[in-house]
Amino acid sequence: MSAPGSGSSSSSVDVARLVSVMRRTEPLVHCLTNSVVRQITADVLLAAGAAPAMVDHPEEAGDFAAIASGVLINVGNPTSEQVEGMHAAVASAREHGTPWVLDPVAVGALTLRTRLATGWLDHGPAAIRANASETIALAGAGAGGRGVDSTHDVDVALAPALLLAERTGGVVAVTGPRDVVVSTTAGSTTATWITSGHPLLQRVIGTGCALGALTAAYLGAARAASIPDHDAVVAAHAHAGAAGSAAGRVAAGPGLFSVAWLDALYTLSPEEIADSVTLLDATP
Amino acid sequence: MSAPGSGSSSSSVDVARLVSVMRRTEPLVHCLTNSVVRQITADVLLAAGAAPAMVDHPEEAGDFAAIASGVLINVGNPTSEQVEGMHAAVASAREHGTPWVLDPVAVGALTLRTRLATGWLDHGPAAIRANASETIALAGAGAGGRGVDSTHDVDVALAPALLLAERTGGVVAVTGPRDVVVSTTAGSTTATWITSGHPLLQRVIGTGCALGALTAAYLGAARAASIPDHDAVVAAHAHAGAAGSAAGRVAAGPGLFSVAWLDALYTLSPEEIADSVTLLDATP
Amino acid sequence: MSAPGSGSSSSSVDVARLVSVMRRTEPLVHCLTNSVVRQITADVLLAAGAAPAMVDHPEEAGDFAAIASGVLINVGNPTSEQVEGMHAAVASAREHGTPWVLDPVAVGALTLRTRLATGWLDHGPAAIRANASETIALAGAGAGGRGVDSTHDVDVALAPALLLAERTGGVVAVTGPRDVVVSTTAGSTTATWITSGHPLLQRVIGTGCALGALTAAYLGAARAASIPDHDAVVAAHAHAGAAGSAAGRVAAGPGLFSVAWLDALYTLSPEEIADSVTLLDATP
Repeated sequence: MSAPGSGSSSSSVDVARLVSVMRRTEPLVHCLTNSVVRQITADVLLAAGAAPAMVDHPEEAGDFAAIASGVLINVGNPTSEQVEGMHAAVASAREHGTPWVLDPVAVGALTLRTRLATGWLDHGPAAIRANASETIALAGAGAGGRGVDSTHDVDVALAPALLLAERTGGVVAVTGPRDVVVSTTAGSTTATWITSGHPLLQRVIGTGCALGALTAAYLGAARAASIPDHDAVVAAHAHAGAAGSAAGRVAAGPGLFSVAWLDALYTLSPEEIADSVTLLDATP
Repeated sequence: MSAPGSGSSSSSVDVARLVSVMRRTEPLVHCLTNSVVRQITADVLLAAGAAPAMVDHPEEAGDFAAIASGVLINVGNPTSEQVEGMHAAVASAREHGTPWVLDPVAVGALTLRTRLATGWLDHGPAAIRANASETIALAGAGAGGRGVDSTHDVDVALAPALLLAERTGGVVAVTGPRDVVVSTTAGSTTATWITSGHPLLQRVIGTGCALGALTAAYLGAARAASIPDHDAVVAAHAHAGAAGSAAGRVAAGPGLFSVAWLDALYTLSPEEIADSVTLLDATP
Repeated sequence: MSAPGSGSSSSSVDVARLVSVMRRTEPLVHCLTNSVVRQITADVLLAAGAAPAMVDHPEEAGDFAAIASGVLINVGNPTSEQVEGMHAAVASAREHGTPWVLDPVAVGALTLRTRLATGWLDHGPAAIRANASETIALAGAGAGGRGVDSTHDVDVALAPALLLAERTGGVVAVTGPRDVVVSTTAGSTTATWITSGHPLLQRVIGTGCALGALTAAYLGAARAASIPDHDAVVAAHAHAGAAGSAAGRVAAGPGLFSVAWLDALYTLSPEEIADSVTLLDATP
């Protein structure tokens, strides 16, 4: 396959409709995520129009995953007790049909989280959201990066992403300068390339992790409206990326960028989000 | 009782004096709170004029509650080890006369925190700060909300709040579009309604949790000046609400709102805070 | 010795060169720090030009300290499991020659962290970063402060800082209205006084803790370029302080100050940072 350049959109995904549906639904997202990004993750969900709840304790995590609209499992910097809560949440989400998202932070570079994320591949994640290095490592195709950074281009991660999509049956999103979302349905594979965002997103902690939570929000809202998971994942990336582009137009540094990004997640209309990003469906 | 509308203030609480006393005292607030909001809680205390310290470890929590001006126990997303620290802090606060505040985040919806918060009702909290759903659940009058959101109006929580005030002997504050602070002294009950704030406070994580910490700060300062606990709790809500109103005048989204809220907590004078809010004492 | 006043710089430290080297190196900093400040610590590293990674689990902390450019051990609000991770990270950093920084938050006031920090003095920290009260307590010369606040002036902490530098063989930085960095090499002691910053740094949580992480970043970059540790620690304080001065020129409150501080950490050139601070080498 060849990687498309930026240009006018050509995709079957109706981003504007999905943003409207998500904001109207106000999905409750159960986040089991790392302690570095809990505040910004919650703020991103609130700004975008969803509702966050962090419930990590093993006694409570299973119950909450059963009633949430979506669940995020982010393996960055876990504690032993939180890992127990994650196991309970994954099992409960699967049992109750709650869509759950796996964010394999720094998988490949570190042993505990690699073991965890790999083990959960067979538990039906609705989506995996990762950078290129993490995608390659999770697919068993490489040694991973040096932590949360990606040392690989998104293009190189396309084949491993397809492997993961086939193995899990879920959607796989690889985040980078340009994102790609891949999924396989009834033997047919779709890849949607998304051009949006801004380089300063890399200079604010948690923008990628929060996108994982936003993906869970869109999945929860989309399922309630019988919209395909693939479209939900694309819309989450479009929402975050469009807000990044808007923030980049007003901010010269990461402090103001972070503030403007939250504001844009809140103020951009569904149509403004759809118009701001370039989508291209391709057959990989 | 009938709920009063917004209008000119009619209350015996001298908000301006309390703000001055709190800032002069610079109370040290021992916060045992959830990991999502620790940063903004500390920033709110610093901006308002208090001093934060998060001390969760069971080996240290008891010692610190003995020397702090006030203690916050917020049961959102607890860990098992932090729960041990909370037990130690509550016992020490009670023994040493340190006023402590209970924030029953998501009580009713989740089992562990419901058990914890209910158990501590008999340990003499100086104040309880909650939304309407949490107040109703804690009073045993309902099933609670869907997490941190409130699905009930403040008015409906007035009777449960009175029950909690009578049972604990402490002040009970129900936070919402309009707040109400209730307490019972020598068989006489007072309710103070507070009209202030801004809807964007609901779109920034931790504004309510930080208000719990600010309540502990005001209680510590007020006790040192022999001012009633009821007045301290009202002043904390007035300070946070006035800053919310000021932030709402300059911000269109939650990112800038959060920044402006912290700035207003810091820059508003005692008189500006008092003038910005509408108070009404009522006999419920 | 007499404490120098502010004036033109007289120091052998080439701050501009160090900033350039640090940004070119983009050092990976392994942070084991308290849960209150993890987000701002990561944001400060990203804004300044380094790369953060929080890895606390005992199973992963040793492996990561071996490959990181620098390690931060901040004892504020530890958990039992994180303490195990800290032990593993310190041992691994020592074994693999990774420079590590000790930040003894609230040592003196609290038992667990005092025991931990004191015990690690013999494990070769490349630097200790503390306020005056913590420095005095760690040197065994006093009873410490009331938590994270310093109740002592920096001048009073100079002699205890020299004791710590001699005992550990590392650099000791005492942060305050004016900072001092001391170290002993081959029997000769150097003290560098740094005048920079802004009072609002005290009204934003984590500015001091993040400076500890930035110190680890500069140490990692400096060692790779064969620049002395002393100079790296001075440059870290200069970078943070210059950004504080810049933020103080545009912000009236702590909310906007925090945003502007992150922006200045990112946008200030090496020469602007060097020109903004006053350095004075002295023989204590």
